[in-house]
Amino acid sequence: MSHLKPAAEGLRTRIFQIIFESDTPAAKAFDIALIGLILCSVLVVMLESVVSLQERHGDIFHTLEWGFTILFTAELAVRLYCLDRPWQYLRSFYGVIDLLAILPTWLALIVPGTQSLVVVRLLRTLRIFRVLRLMEFVGEGRLLIDALKRSSHQIFLFLFTVCMLITIFASLVYLIEPAEAGFTSIPTSIYWAAVTLTTVGYGDIAPVTPLGQAISVMMMLIGYSIIAVPTGVFSAEVIRSIRADRYSEEACPGCGHDRHDQKAYYCLRCGTWLDEETPDPRAEHDSSAQD
Amino acid sequence: MSHLKPAAEGLRTRIFQIIFESDTPAAKAFDIALIGLILCSVLVVMLESVVSLQERHGDIFHTLEWGFTILFTAELAVRLYCLDRPWQYLRSFYGVIDLLAILPTWLALIVPGTQSLVVVRLLRTLRIFRVLRLMEFVGEGRLLIDALKRSSHQIFLFLFTVCMLITIFASLVYLIEPAEAGFTSIPTSIYWAAVTLTTVGYGDIAPVTPLGQAISVMMMLIGYSIIAVPTGVFSAEVIRSIRADRYSEEACPGCGHDRHDQKAYYCLRCGTWLDEETPDPRAEHDSSAQD
Amino acid sequence: MSHLKPAAEGLRTRIFQIIFESDTPAAKAFDIALIGLILCSVLVVMLESVVSLQERHGDIFHTLEWGFTILFTAELAVRLYCLDRPWQYLRSFYGVIDLLAILPTWLALIVPGTQSLVVVRLLRTLRIFRVLRLMEFVGEGRLLIDALKRSSHQIFLFLFTVCMLITIFASLVYLIEPAEAGFTSIPTSIYWAAVTLTTVGYGDIAPVTPLGQAISVMMMLIGYSIIAVPTGVFSAEVIRSIRADRYSEEACPGCGHDRHDQKAYYCLRCGTWLDEETPDPRAEHDSSAQD
Amino acid sequence: MSHLKPAAEGLRTRIFQIIFESDTPAAKAFDIALIGLILCSVLVVMLESVVSLQERHGDIFHTLEWGFTILFTAELAVRLYCLDRPWQYLRSFYGVIDLLAILPTWLALIVPGTQSLVVVRLLRTLRIFRVLRLMEFVGEGRLLIDALKRSSHQIFLFLFTVCMLITIFASLVYLIEPAEAGFTSIPTSIYWAAVTLTTVGYGDIAPVTPLGQAISVMMMLIGYSIIAVPTGVFSAEVIRSIRADRYSEEACPGCGHDRHDQKAYYCLRCGTWLDEETPDPRAEHDSSAQD
Repeated sequence: MSHLKPAAEGLRTRIFQIIFESDTPAAKAFDIALIGLILCSVLVVMLESVVSLQERHGDIFHTLEWGFTILFTAELAVRLYCLDRPWQYLRSFYGVIDLLAILPTWLALIVPGTQSLVVVRLLRTLRIFRVLRLMEFVGEGRLLIDALKRSSHQIFLFLFTVCMLITIFASLVYLIEPAEAGFTSIPTSIYWAAVTLTTVGYGDIAPVTPLGQAISVMMMLIGYSIIAVPTGVFSAEVIRSIRADRYSEEACPGCGHDRHDQKAYYCLRCGTWLDEETPDPRAEHDSSAQD
Repeated sequence: MSHLKPAAEGLRTRIFQIIFESDTPAAKAFDIALIGLILCSVLVVMLESVVSLQERHGDIFHTLEWGFTILFTAELAVRLYCLDRPWQYLRSFYGVIDLLAILPTWLALIVPGTQSLVVVRLLRTLRIFRVLRLMEFVGEGRLLIDALKRSSHQIFLFLFTVCMLITIFASLVYLIEPAEAGFTSIPTSIYWAAVTLTTVGYGDIAPVTPLGQAISVMMMLIGYSIIAVPTGVFSAEVIRSIRADRYSEEACPGCGHDRHDQKAYYCLRCGTWLDEETPDPRAEHDSSAQD
Repeated sequence: MSHLKPAAEGLRTRIFQIIFESDTPAAKAFDIALIGLILCSVLVVMLESVVSLQERHGDIFHTLEWGFTILFTAELAVRLYCLDRPWQYLRSFYGVIDLLAILPTWLALIVPGTQSLVVVRLLRTLRIFRVLRLMEFVGEGRLLIDALKRSSHQIFLFLFTVCMLITIFASLVYLIEPAEAGFTSIPTSIYWAAVTLTTVGYGDIAPVTPLGQAISVMMMLIGYSIIAVPTGVFSAEVIRSIRADRYSEEACPGCGHDRHDQKAYYCLRCGTWLDEETPDPRAEHDSSAQD
Repeated sequence: MSHLKPAAEGLRTRIFQIIFESDTPAAKAFDIALIGLILCSVLVVMLESVVSLQERHGDIFHTLEWGFTILFTAELAVRLYCLDRPWQYLRSFYGVIDLLAILPTWLALIVPGTQSLVVVRLLRTLRIFRVLRLMEFVGEGRLLIDALKRSSHQIFLFLFTVCMLITIFASLVYLIEPAEAGFTSIPTSIYWAAVTLTTVGYGDIAPVTPLGQAISVMMMLIGYSIIAVPTGVFSAEVIRSIRADRYSEEACPGCGHDRHDQKAYYCLRCGTWLDEETPDPRAEHDSSAQD
């Protein structure tokens, strides 16, 4: 950075604080403006996909799209300007998202027809997660992610069992039901079995033979009940997380009571001073009284 | 209120106790009669919307509607009569509901065609919440609302993640599925993705391509499993709420700390003996040592 | 019962033990035979309702139906015979069920056409609950019912809120959606709203306007999330029930530790004898050793 | 095994370790290769069922099918070769699965038309469970299965109640709804009732009369709420299982009781000091008193 003039250097640092951090008023305003801009651009992409609106207001959408593309390109340029290693940012998760959001429109200038790829701009909504992370939702999110991580093995086992059930029931019903009812192949039967077991139930494919219906009923009852498994596992983990936050597991040196509030100084049972590294203020008081 | 004659003043107070409170037999009878009246008027509005019934019994419905309107108008008038600040009531939540319930019928006298607005009378059922609040359901409701409040940040995060998943999957399937299958625009795809992820599954729009069906199966499995998240979070909060009953709210005489385990003998902050009716065993020990 | 001869009296007592209790081998055999008979009769009623089977095997069904009716009539007669107050039994829950199971067939002799009422025989399956109650499922069932009872107020509040949401959303969508889409009246809209909020999603009625679909998506997200409420409340109650079964809340007289297994004789922290009403066997042993 | 030459014997033992165990690198490689092979063969069976693919690539599928059959037959032969009691393995769960996976193809040589039975090869995916069991998922799986076992009585009661509700509501709606709406028989009504109560909601059969729709709404609300029961029961059991980790399984040296809190100092049954490495503070106190 030494090759920059001090003034420019100070500007870069100031811009960096505004667009990459979020603890100054200017940075917060930038975050909110960015979320607003992303939501607007997403809305335009959505409305543009409605044929009747596209026909009537196609010109407005076209102008807005270019407006957003130029704004996002400018934002990305400024981001890269105030970083020391711009290439590393471009290869990061949010860098790729930023790039994907502007590429389709620019690309359409060179290669006609890539216009439809503008849908990938919806991925930009993922950037909102980053803003949330910088804001007040840190603690809650971490607790949830911790609980998910610790229950991930069990939830993997659950999903694997569900997939096995889907496959086995799908093959069974594929053998029983006629192709006319929609069970034309095993992959289609698996789609139907997933629709049934997860209690979604589109009804585009439904069993018509009594035996097929009986097996479906069994699948529904299983799907209806086993949702208790991930729920139970995750509940237990959240409860453990919350409790771990609150209680110390260290036993009182006086009476051995081992469930104290994290903030406790004295044992609630025998009144013993709990912090063994610092002296009990009462003791000091007593000894000075005895002198 | 001094400009009223004492007798009238006594009447106003008595009416106030009957229609705004609920601890006297008369007030309870009024509450029950009001709930009954509201339910009847709601039933009439509902039946009136059935074309075949409207054609046959239109006159009865018309008469009943005017009956309820007059009764509700009288009730609102009495409510306003016995309040000192009637305008403030009219601007409150229940005041607006009371007004909305009678306005459409009166308005139809002046502006023909507002008749269909009588549907807003259904909002009057919200008043039942107020009656419940006055009755025995206070404690339980508060516990639930407390638990909801404390888990609101996490449930917001959950709903935001669900909305992101819906948007991203919707755009993906919009690109894959043909418009003939019903995926005509991104908003429609979002509607379909929400129907799928929440396991509602109308089936009015359903994927037809193998790739679209595979992605749907993934969405269903995600939607089926992540319901464990809000359930786990809320379960943990309810358990915490119930357990919070275990805490005494009495302040320590030594330092004023006011959140002690029900079973605590000593303040966890300053070690003071909490049970004021029996002597501190430590004190006895100390005094015997001093002897 | 004094007017009966001793032998007959003994017979009545023995029959009573067999058909009303379930702790002797004969009584258990009777219970199992009765469950088998009920399930068979239910199966016959079900198969009889299938038109193609009825046409082919109508005679067999007719014969079986009369067989079951005579067996159930005989059983009811014997039940009444060995009771001191037969009329009281006939007015009880299970008495009414027993009567309803045989009435339609007998009634069809007098009033032709009551045949179709034989469906009420399915209610006889409820008797299986009684048999289960007598068997090993007592404890588990009681725990569940206790937890349900204690959470009933909160679950009532939840269901009431759900009904309010259904009514309000139904009226809203009734105003928005055209009658052609199936929203012909408020009761029909309520049916649709219930189908949507409970995530059932038949799809026989589905919103077609963008605004209607947007409101539906909101309803789905609400319905998908608030299922966490009854689940959380009930989980908390079951956990409380299980814990209350297991731990004594009485504090140890020695050290005050207050979480002991119900079966504990000695404090796990300080080894003090916990049962204050009987002497500590160790103490006796020690004192005899000192002698 | 004594009739084998030592070298062959050593080979058998080595093969046994590779294909039946999973703690050596070779055994792990074999496990992963086997899972890969199973998934490939399953994929081929699935794709083969798609008519358009079968028509175009029928020959490739035929070749691949024979390839997998020969590989699986070889694997089974080797498994049997290195076991001392091969017949016992063939009668075990995984032996039957291994046999079922190869039988259809061989059988088709003798009895034409059994080709379609190749679907049973999908059962081979169950073998993946065995591989998982050998890997790191042991602990998590056991915890889930323990919790399921302990809640099995209550979940049985829940499913039985759900089945009763389905039967009773099905009969009721069968009497109310016309056959034209799809309620042609009680078994069909039961299918519909299961679809409704488990919130699957295909919509292939839906009530059309107001009364039938009102009863459906009641069923939906019940089905929507009672899912809280198995979830609550299972959550409580998982929490108990996690907490059970808190219990030491070491037996008390005094009385042999083997379920102590991890933090217990004294046996809750006989008061014996549990920590054999440090002396009992009581003993010290007693001995000093005796001096």
